[in-house]
Amino acid sequence: MINFASDNLSGAAPRILAALEAVDAGAAMPYGEDEVTARLERRFAEVFETDLAAFPVVTGTAANALTLAAMTPPYGAVYCHPEAHINAEECGAPEFYTGGAKLVGVPGAHGKLAAADVAAALAHAGVGFVHHVQPGAVSLTQASDAGTVYTPEEVAAIAEVARAHGLAVQMDGARLANALARLGCTPAEATWKAGVDVLAFGATKNGALAAEAAVFFRPELAREVAYRRKRGGHLISKMRYLSAQLEAYLQDDLWLADARHANAQAARLAEGLAALPGCALLHPVEGNEVFARLPEAALDGLEAAGFVFYRWREAGPGVVRLVASFDTRPQDVDAFLAEAARHCAGG
Amino acid sequence: MINFASDNLSGAAPRILAALEAVDAGAAMPYGEDEVTARLERRFAEVFETDLAAFPVVTGTAANALTLAAMTPPYGAVYCHPEAHINAEECGAPEFYTGGAKLVGVPGAHGKLAAADVAAALAHAGVGFVHHVQPGAVSLTQASDAGTVYTPEEVAAIAEVARAHGLAVQMDGARLANALARLGCTPAEATWKAGVDVLAFGATKNGALAAEAAVFFRPELAREVAYRRKRGGHLISKMRYLSAQLEAYLQDDLWLADARHANAQAARLAEGLAALPGCALLHPVEGNEVFARLPEAALDGLEAAGFVFYRWREAGPGVVRLVASFDTRPQDVDAFLAEAARHCAGG
Amino acid sequence: MINFASDNLSGAAPRILAALEAVDAGAAMPYGEDEVTARLERRFAEVFETDLAAFPVVTGTAANALTLAAMTPPYGAVYCHPEAHINAEECGAPEFYTGGAKLVGVPGAHGKLAAADVAAALAHAGVGFVHHVQPGAVSLTQASDAGTVYTPEEVAAIAEVARAHGLAVQMDGARLANALARLGCTPAEATWKAGVDVLAFGATKNGALAAEAAVFFRPELAREVAYRRKRGGHLISKMRYLSAQLEAYLQDDLWLADARHANAQAARLAEGLAALPGCALLHPVEGNEVFARLPEAALDGLEAAGFVFYRWREAGPGVVRLVASFDTRPQDVDAFLAEAARHCAGG
Amino acid sequence: MINFASDNLSGAAPRILAALEAVDAGAAMPYGEDEVTARLERRFAEVFETDLAAFPVVTGTAANALTLAAMTPPYGAVYCHPEAHINAEECGAPEFYTGGAKLVGVPGAHGKLAAADVAAALAHAGVGFVHHVQPGAVSLTQASDAGTVYTPEEVAAIAEVARAHGLAVQMDGARLANALARLGCTPAEATWKAGVDVLAFGATKNGALAAEAAVFFRPELAREVAYRRKRGGHLISKMRYLSAQLEAYLQDDLWLADARHANAQAARLAEGLAALPGCALLHPVEGNEVFARLPEAALDGLEAAGFVFYRWREAGPGVVRLVASFDTRPQDVDAFLAEAARHCAGG
Repeated sequence: MINFASDNLSGAAPRILAALEAVDAGAAMPYGEDEVTARLERRFAEVFETDLAAFPVVTGTAANALTLAAMTPPYGAVYCHPEAHINAEECGAPEFYTGGAKLVGVPGAHGKLAAADVAAALAHAGVGFVHHVQPGAVSLTQASDAGTVYTPEEVAAIAEVARAHGLAVQMDGARLANALARLGCTPAEATWKAGVDVLAFGATKNGALAAEAAVFFRPELAREVAYRRKRGGHLISKMRYLSAQLEAYLQDDLWLADARHANAQAARLAEGLAALPGCALLHPVEGNEVFARLPEAALDGLEAAGFVFYRWREAGPGVVRLVASFDTRPQDVDAFLAEAARHCAGG
Repeated sequence: MINFASDNLSGAAPRILAALEAVDAGAAMPYGEDEVTARLERRFAEVFETDLAAFPVVTGTAANALTLAAMTPPYGAVYCHPEAHINAEECGAPEFYTGGAKLVGVPGAHGKLAAADVAAALAHAGVGFVHHVQPGAVSLTQASDAGTVYTPEEVAAIAEVARAHGLAVQMDGARLANALARLGCTPAEATWKAGVDVLAFGATKNGALAAEAAVFFRPELAREVAYRRKRGGHLISKMRYLSAQLEAYLQDDLWLADARHANAQAARLAEGLAALPGCALLHPVEGNEVFARLPEAALDGLEAAGFVFYRWREAGPGVVRLVASFDTRPQDVDAFLAEAARHCAGG
Repeated sequence: MINFASDNLSGAAPRILAALEAVDAGAAMPYGEDEVTARLERRFAEVFETDLAAFPVVTGTAANALTLAAMTPPYGAVYCHPEAHINAEECGAPEFYTGGAKLVGVPGAHGKLAAADVAAALAHAGVGFVHHVQPGAVSLTQASDAGTVYTPEEVAAIAEVARAHGLAVQMDGARLANALARLGCTPAEATWKAGVDVLAFGATKNGALAAEAAVFFRPELAREVAYRRKRGGHLISKMRYLSAQLEAYLQDDLWLADARHANAQAARLAEGLAALPGCALLHPVEGNEVFARLPEAALDGLEAAGFVFYRWREAGPGVVRLVASFDTRPQDVDAFLAEAARHCAGG
Repeated sequence: MINFASDNLSGAAPRILAALEAVDAGAAMPYGEDEVTARLERRFAEVFETDLAAFPVVTGTAANALTLAAMTPPYGAVYCHPEAHINAEECGAPEFYTGGAKLVGVPGAHGKLAAADVAAALAHAGVGFVHHVQPGAVSLTQASDAGTVYTPEEVAAIAEVARAHGLAVQMDGARLANALARLGCTPAEATWKAGVDVLAFGATKNGALAAEAAVFFRPELAREVAYRRKRGGHLISKMRYLSAQLEAYLQDDLWLADARHANAQAARLAEGLAALPGCALLHPVEGNEVFARLPEAALDGLEAAGFVFYRWREAGPGVVRLVASFDTRPQDVDAFLAEAARHCAGG
């Protein structure tokens, strides 16, 4: 299988897998009382250049749901893009963990929220009006679900709107590394310095086996998280194996290097596709995801040739999502493009 | 650290850690659509000699909460021992996943439910009486939270009571391997043949990194589980690494061999303690856990000597829980006993 | 105060208030085991010409939330108009009672769902796709939140779409009487004969003190409702006083007569407004609600003159909602129109 | 029917029913923005001699669930008597409204909590231990579910324990009037002056049609209640009819006079029964409830003679609960006693 379906079809980055063995010997205190986890929290603080509270979990869904539940009461609302993963792809996990909050979609071009649209939505929210759910949080996905990336300035503009309404800002950072690789700024600049209060930090899509973290830049929001994590079944007893993945991920900027590689492959793919007759990109390619429209015959031919990818049927005929990963090889990209070209040329 | 605190302080069994590398190469479909997970479900069916549905998850809390939520409506009740892990040690996870069901404690000697007591509790439940929560499930822990083991006959007697009230039976099998090692019966005999409908199958406490499974012997009870697992944040994208742990765990009866070893060390410990002046066992030692009362001075001395264990203060002064694991060495047991003897002799 | 703000500012219909005294004497069994409640359920069956199960409650929010919770799992979705009361005005009650289901807005002209739009939304729902919430119910408001009325044919078309996807249909009938008064069809024709499975039957907005009912035309959907009603705190102990309101409401077609009166006043108001310079109706006036745009100066003048109504600011400047009630007097309508005319003429 | 089954079989007190008509004329703002409700809140403050926030609702279940949800997080625990109405008779409403908190039973003689037992339970609660639900509130029922009454000193002792653990105290006052009639102290002395923070104030069992209130003596605990009440479907639109009941209830001490009458009838009944051969009281009779054991033959005879009461089978053969109400007549008590005597004499 030559995988362009998703970055979660990839296996583990070698250094991350190796880290499991490195922490294996002997007994260690469970439930996060171990040394690896303590080291990890310090490492997170260094990487983000600030005090923070980090709660490792095994899925992005858990990281998102736990962070949102820390910010939003059951009668609350989370403002997000309609296509945000939290709204569209998590089977209602945020609703479950918040106790029934409402996700309010604020449409925006290329998968991103615009500050003005968030402001307009909040203006009609009815704060203090008992018949309405009450604004609880603003959530943005970085990189977005359309493969685009918010600049720190864009994040800051949204955060300013949120702050003006007394709301905190959550970032779904399942592909934060890809966004950082694009932006070239520091993790701090992309997050809390731009007004992000809480981060669902992702590693699985970029080389971990199963490792994410709920990261709180404002400790007072983290007060309940330990209980909610346990109650959600997400407090891993042998935590060191989870923390070790995140530690290796952050070590020597492995995460950024691997994300740069993935982004580069996506860019290579996008450039090639854009040049093919009958092909078009749907969104700017700023991370490791390419949304494109190809002739149906080309898609059929590519599948027949063993390439794996998702048809994005709700976006119309011929639309696909192609995702590059830390282990995508340039020759795989080129083979994909060559195969596509064979079918498009004939079109 | 010489660990008698818990089996979850141990690391991973070597063959289980090795299995992660074995499934690492190349791309694999995510979210359980991979070959390893398919193999695992077949393997589970062979081991339990019946058709079943198995949902791997990373914690016993998740396995318990998801299985109970499949059996109990929000206005339901789960009958269990007051000291059952689901009632006492999961921060309300079953309440969370069921949408607010009530756990009704039915006391019983040595951590076990007695069928007659369950029958008496159900007789007063008020079935159909709208002011009362409605019986939803009976749950028993095997091995129990007091380190004892239900015989298949005891399970069957409880299941018969449950069945007579239209209830299904859940088994918290976090230490099922230890129970089987004690009983010498087949997994089928200890579970569905004795009337168990749903099983929280544990592996983490016996050598996995983080791997459990929600196992349904009655497929109609599993209808909603896939959605509830996703919604709980427990659908791992790179599932192969989770399934591989369980596959290795079951391979060549590794799980039973390792449990036998742990049980043997617990027995060695129990025998030694029982012979010491001033020491007493609180429960029959039938699995890998020893509950004992020792002189406080002995406990202080043992801790000073580097032995790690839990003081079980709610059970009174001097009470400790000592847990043996797949990697507990006989010499560690003997060292513990020697140190204890030194203090008890002087008493 | 001359009230055009809402039908729930009105008091009780005299015959309904009188019914409370009529059932007051002596003791009666509580929690709905009384004779009045038994009579009421029979009366409902007569009025709707079918067997049904009816659960009286005190608010439309409760009737909606309980009916939706009977149809939708926690991981489910309710398809409704974005401006539906259940989505916009109940502070998340459906989310609370369902355990966190998602309300999916399907926009439509004049506050109504169109069958084709529901079909299109369901086509992309992802049935069986574990990452998506699963369709649970379709809900429509009759009369709608824009004051329009679904014909039985329109309801049937939506119900057919729902049925084709295995979904049941809920009707929020907070103003069902007004819809029936408009349609001239029987209650049966407007509901279950058109494919409605479950009805939130309203009486409060049309003359009751506080009386609604969750009505199930398909008894199998009602299986859990008694428990969920109790658990929601909605099982009234002295139920006779609640049932008596509904009985009087249905007696001698009081509900339809009062709704016809309210509709007639709304029509009178609409006709008058439409004739004023600078005024416009936003939606067809088919029930007892008028949505109109008036010059701001006219609104200020009307308020200064003591008329009470809601400014509908989210729909733009000058937009108001005017609601007629069972006790709205023609002379009040005429006075309103005269005052409005005074300001519009000068415009 | 001569009712000793429950005080909620009685109808409405005449002055309370009359109050509905008194507030009926004309339009009034909905959802509690009316004058009656404003007056009621001031009246509550006068009666309790302190600032407070009062939220009228229609059931005690709602008042209990809303107050407990204001005090207890989803991962919290409410400490109460095992037979407390909130634990035994509300079908899990507190679990529903809190989002899945746990009710922890603390047994005590005659239906009452003892401060020392609460202290002992809290000592083992495991505050800050992430595997345990966290103490959220202590709840006591006044008068208790065994018909006994806490003295202010007893309440204060429990409240002191709660305060020492950082917990707030909730009082289920479904029969608070009966307790006050017994104690002869002021409402303030029985509640907040003794350390009660939140009160579920009952009126229905003592003459209202359906009227209770969630009363907060500490306003900071009431912050979320308006939203949770709406979300629970308990915000009545025509609130004046609910508030009017409570206003009439408090007017001229009607509530206390009616409760004194009910208590006197219960005392008359208890005295009579205690003198009969073969009869015994199970609990001190301090309010309007009598728990007694009678010969089965006497019970059969009483039922045959048309007396209605509950057999309390879970307390053993021959046990009944007899409840006096504001409208219980002395001659009904005497008739009951005469009939009982006829059967007991022959024993």
